[in-house]
Amino acid sequence: MIPLPLEALPDLLRRSPYHRLLGLEMVRVAHGEVVIRMPFREDLLAGDDEMGQYVHGGAIASLIDSAGDFAIIAAVGRDVPTIDLRVDYLRPAAKGALTATGRAIKAGRSLGVADIEVVAEDGTVIAVGRGVFKT
Amino acid sequence: MIPLPLEALPDLLRRSPYHRLLGLEMVRVAHGEVVIRMPFREDLLAGDDEMGQYVHGGAIASLIDSAGDFAIIAAVGRDVPTIDLRVDYLRPAAKGALTATGRAIKAGRSLGVADIEVVAEDGTVIAVGRGVFKT
Amino acid sequence: MIPLPLEALPDLLRRSPYHRLLGLEMVRVAHGEVVIRMPFREDLLAGDDEMGQYVHGGAIASLIDSAGDFAIIAAVGRDVPTIDLRVDYLRPAAKGALTATGRAIKAGRSLGVADIEVVAEDGTVIAVGRGVFKT
Amino acid sequence: MIPLPLEALPDLLRRSPYHRLLGLEMVRVAHGEVVIRMPFREDLLAGDDEMGQYVHGGAIASLIDSAGDFAIIAAVGRDVPTIDLRVDYLRPAAKGALTATGRAIKAGRSLGVADIEVVAEDGTVIAVGRGVFKT
Repeated sequence: MIPLPLEALPDLLRRSPYHRLLGLEMVRVAHGEVVIRMPFREDLLAGDDEMGQYVHGGAIASLIDSAGDFAIIAAVGRDVPTIDLRVDYLRPAAKGALTATGRAIKAGRSLGVADIEVVAEDGTVIAVGRGVFKT
Repeated sequence: MIPLPLEALPDLLRRSPYHRLLGLEMVRVAHGEVVIRMPFREDLLAGDDEMGQYVHGGAIASLIDSAGDFAIIAAVGRDVPTIDLRVDYLRPAAKGALTATGRAIKAGRSLGVADIEVVAEDGTVIAVGRGVFKT
Repeated sequence: MIPLPLEALPDLLRRSPYHRLLGLEMVRVAHGEVVIRMPFREDLLAGDDEMGQYVHGGAIASLIDSAGDFAIIAAVGRDVPTIDLRVDYLRPAAKGALTATGRAIKAGRSLGVADIEVVAEDGTVIAVGRGVFKT
Repeated sequence: MIPLPLEALPDLLRRSPYHRLLGLEMVRVAHGEVVIRMPFREDLLAGDDEMGQYVHGGAIASLIDSAGDFAIIAAVGRDVPTIDLRVDYLRPAAKGALTATGRAIKAGRSLGVADIEVVAEDGTVIAVGRGVFKT
């Protein structure tokens, strides 16, 4: 199988219906590293006016999963399923775009491990994640 | 503060814009335990025809986060933020509704811990999760 | 390779120098499920008289790793390395023996997943764990 | 309560019977960051001659727990219990000392989060960890 070239990754990201639902956009891609942006939208909020208007943890987990997944794809050149995913929420994410940087910290023959950091528009780290992927 | 009665939880779930985006529905609620359903929709898929049509791991993580969160809400009677979340994907989730059962395994004064199991329409467990919540 | 019979597992547990250091003992073994006991010893304590005398979280994590590992060995019949491990500490473990039950919740061709529960002598659950193993 | 000065941390580490059992030594301590070393000993091995002689994952998890814990202690100035711990094993750890660097990535009023990296004598990263601590 011909490995996916890095140039193909932005399109691969957009081809996923769920990525389009969340509005994910590839910002940058390099060997074993990607930056993915989730623009702000009202329907990503966890609560209504009364409950506190933060981006839902599930949307953040989705962004983290995708950034980890694509970091490993950008290392091994093929689509890889997630084996497990962990997310630590460090601060609430107020209204605004979120940007995730995913980096492969291992890209072996059978397994890959990626670290992901999510920052708000002002650069504050609002969550970190780690995932294992089947290569 | 008056604790939230269990009867208020289905409405609380629906009040979240992100839950409405994913179509989450409360099926059942009891003290420290909830069942939440995510009906199937094409835009929850990870890939297109060519890539393999499974429900995206981020949608599953979102369902798990919400089921864990509401299990703790159903134990302590107030909204609780997620501290961290872990998801293990056991099998790909083919097209179909997913149902998550969340159970509080600890509901202390400062922290709650919930276990979550996600099953496909045929009852197969496709993912398990665990989360820590700030009570 | 001939799969390890369940009868061989207690001996396999004892053959590990680290298991002997901690004093781990196999209590029961069945297909995909094991019970391992860590008798109490003063040198498993996290602190001295002044600091609070609880069993150290690292000793509990070690017990959880071994119980998860042997649950998968008891499912697939061969030694398996740990890919990742997660431990949730629910309550402090006062002086006394700890008993871990490990259960395989997935035992696939390439990966196994195990759930582990650790109880104190009075049956209180003091920690839960989950691990992924390379089968 | 008077916060613990950084100078008190090496002694606090040694006061734990379990740390002495494993031979842990504080190498360096700074605000929110510690380096802890686990010298090699035969009784930290996972297996005997026949099984493969790697440092046991439980010993590595113990080292990671302590390095994370002390990173948070070095940020907040008091002893803190572990809420949860996650370890990713990247490579087997052959015979030799292991050195863990723990860094506080959050040190809030109620919670701290630490990242931990474990390297072998040749500098290879053999495991990474993340933990949440109650501050």
